[in-house]
Amino acid sequence: KSWLSISPESHFSLANIPFGIISTPTNSKPRPAVAIGDHALDLSLFAQNNGFSAAPGIEADIQIFSDETLNAFAAKGQSFHREVRMYLQAIFTDDTPHPTILKTNEKLKSEALIALKDVQTHLPMEIGDYTDFFAGKNHAFNVGTLFRGPENALNSNYLHLPVAYHGRASSVVVSGTSLKRPWGQTLSDPKAEPKVPNFTPCKRLDIELELGMFVCKGNALGEQIDVKSASRYIFGYVLMNDWSARDIQMWEYVPLGPFNAKNFGTTISAWVVLADALAPFVTKGMENFTPLHTYLQQDDVNNALDIALEIDITTSKGNTTTISRSNAKHLVWSWPQMLAHHTVSGCPMRPGDLLGSGTISGTEFQTQGSLLELSQGGKIPLKLEGAEERRFLEDGDVVTIRGWSGKGAGLVGFVN
Amino acid sequence: KSWLSISPESHFSLANIPFGIISTPTNSKPRPAVAIGDHALDLSLFAQNNGFSAAPGIEADIQIFSDETLNAFAAKGQSFHREVRMYLQAIFTDDTPHPTILKTNEKLKSEALIALKDVQTHLPMEIGDYTDFFAGKNHAFNVGTLFRGPENALNSNYLHLPVAYHGRASSVVVSGTSLKRPWGQTLSDPKAEPKVPNFTPCKRLDIELELGMFVCKGNALGEQIDVKSASRYIFGYVLMNDWSARDIQMWEYVPLGPFNAKNFGTTISAWVVLADALAPFVTKGMENFTPLHTYLQQDDVNNALDIALEIDITTSKGNTTTISRSNAKHLVWSWPQMLAHHTVSGCPMRPGDLLGSGTISGTEFQTQGSLLELSQGGKIPLKLEGAEERRFLEDGDVVTIRGWSGKGAGLVGFVN
Ligand SMILES: [Ca+2]
Ligand SMILES: [Ca+2]
Ligand SMILES: [Mg+2]
Ligand SMILES: [Mg+2]
Ligand code: NI
Repeated sequence: KSWLSISPESHFSLANIPFGIISTPTNSKPRPAVAIGDHALDLSLFAQNNGFSAAPGIEADIQIFSDETLNAFAAKGQSFHREVRMYLQAIFTDDTPHPTILKTNEKLKSEALIALKDVQTHLPMEIGDYTDFFAGKNHAFNVGTLFRGPENALNSNYLHLPVAYHGRASSVVVSGTSLKRPWGQTLSDPKAEPKVPNFTPCKRLDIELELGMFVCKGNALGEQIDVKSASRYIFGYVLMNDWSARDIQMWEYVPLGPFNAKNFGTTISAWVVLADALAPFVTKGMENFTPLHTYLQQDDVNNALDIALEIDITTSKGNTTTISRSNAKHLVWSWPQMLAHHTVSGCPMRPGDLLGSGTISGTEFQTQGSLLELSQGGKIPLKLEGAEERRFLEDGDVVTIRGWSGKGAGLVGFVN
Repeated sequence: KSWLSISPESHFSLANIPFGIISTPTNSKPRPAVAIGDHALDLSLFAQNNGFSAAPGIEADIQIFSDETLNAFAAKGQSFHREVRMYLQAIFTDDTPHPTILKTNEKLKSEALIALKDVQTHLPMEIGDYTDFFAGKNHAFNVGTLFRGPENALNSNYLHLPVAYHGRASSVVVSGTSLKRPWGQTLSDPKAEPKVPNFTPCKRLDIELELGMFVCKGNALGEQIDVKSASRYIFGYVLMNDWSARDIQMWEYVPLGPFNAKNFGTTISAWVVLADALAPFVTKGMENFTPLHTYLQQDDVNNALDIALEIDITTSKGNTTTISRSNAKHLVWSWPQMLAHHTVSGCPMRPGDLLGSGTISGTEFQTQGSLLELSQGGKIPLKLEGAEERRFLEDGDVVTIRGWSGKGAGLVGFVN
């Protein structure tokens, strides 16, 4: 289907065309690119070498492909993203109408098509604000059950509004960035009185499997985003690991929510999969039988995304275990509902803002999105390959998250 | 003391020299300025017209005075801020060593010295992240007493660590910006079961009198700011009103903290008072007898600022009442302690980050920093001029916060 050799297992098929920011050993300036197969197309170089000359609607704005982030591209809006993605698909198609632009242009191919293994990826967006939702109902139920029992697992507000907290934008990093185990105040026995905290490295270091969404369109202070048009505010998606220090969180979070337990790092995947690329994979999310106020009511029940998700842990001994298999459809609030709720107060969104879904857990064992759930609150260790086991993360562990939609040669995924 | 006429009541005395961002009817480009008396000195114009020619250490960097925010100036560090402030004080002093630069330069005076009434102020910094602390112990006690009684007023973590939450940077606005009353989910009776929320405009719209602090120096992800050197990370201070929707907060905040109750707007004063300008007014903060972990231990007990604070409400009928008189020394955690705690996890700070102190309340009636406290949870209306009264804010109310240190002709304050 493409003149470029693309493995049928690649998550970066012709049906995907995700956008990111790269640099290379010979050009350290971060610049936009798309990923296709096991290559990146340097959009800065492509644009400078008449790559968009057959697309006048894009050509006028090619300066945005010289930026160091995707914010300006995102801010151009969905119809522009669509035009660029479809044009690039046409450029890479076997029977491209514009063969001289890249297919037969050996010089540009050799310069602008770079093996992914040779590129350094960077944060794709300058993130103005980062908000983490809690829309994974199974996760909320599982964690609530651990602390309060199944009857009181979900707080009374949970099914009435998409619960969320403001996160720390400065701590969002791109996949591959090493993180240090945070220090903080923890209780050796959370139930003992009086409560006297220790100062220790986090002993319950956890992951949270989430989907991230980047905003491409802002609203003014005091204005609300209508749930019915909110999908237009979506630029695209990334995988997200909201690293969490459970023991620090337990002590600090009443009454103002998680703080140092979350702000030591949140990892996102490098390539933003556009809203359009995932549009064929919309599916029904989790049902919510609670009557909702109008501002949260959606006509469309197909408001979730069918994205298979997997978490691997590779230990310092080199053993790799897939510890969980979940799906992004296990969310009880949709992105339009999250945007509508976030702005119902008049809170302004800006292009580049990042929203996290909340931890995505299924209902079965080994479909949960956190070690807290997988080890039942740290009580039962998870068996890993090589006779290793984990309650929480140990130093040297490498966590890998994969996510993809579709089957066959048209996979749309996040990581190569 | 200055050749420029400065009223002895001005909060912008020669001892102050606060920095801000202005535009004017004839030049709409936002640019740096300092406030002095009832004038602003346009630093962009001043720099372009050899204003800094007698200060070689500044002259080399004057391009930062053409920026649209103070971030680059802030990032130059405290010794640079000190040099610029002291140089400008010398320029404005009666017996200035450089009279030809401004004192006798009628052309530059007429162009670069602009009456404050003719300038539009803008947000002084591009705010990467905004964090709101809860260091006003009297406020925490008063609010805790309303909800849980005096015995359990302070949560068990409160005196062990500076409690805080991540706020919404996009919603921070400069003084003078109108805000809309937020809509949201509220309970008509928070104690009734089952809990079924209404969707209404906020009925318990409140203020929070706070001090804001801007960061001028960053730390890398994974690194901690030492409490003993943390004061070097402080650029300067602003007054802050953390507008709060109490009824929205009550329903939404468990378990992840305040969200829409806070993200519809946080107002800061326009002029950043440098750390140096307030250094003469350090004083003892509130005592904390709790043994602290080393990372929060300060040698210096003079770790608060003696800043008189006042809140006025002007109603739509035109009645103005000073409803509270407080002081910024009523904080149990210092800025260095807040910075040390915020980064003990490895959370990165960046120049331009904003930290709020938490609501600053005294112990007497009419020294509290919120209407929630002043009206005892909305139970007893506050008497205003003209036989008006308030439990919470009504539409058309204008809130004015003043803050100043010192006496006589050397006042250092935030608002003209
Ligand atoms: Ca999370
Ligand atoms: Ca506050
Ligand atoms: Mg995180
Ligand atoms: Mg606020
Ligand atoms: Ni004048």
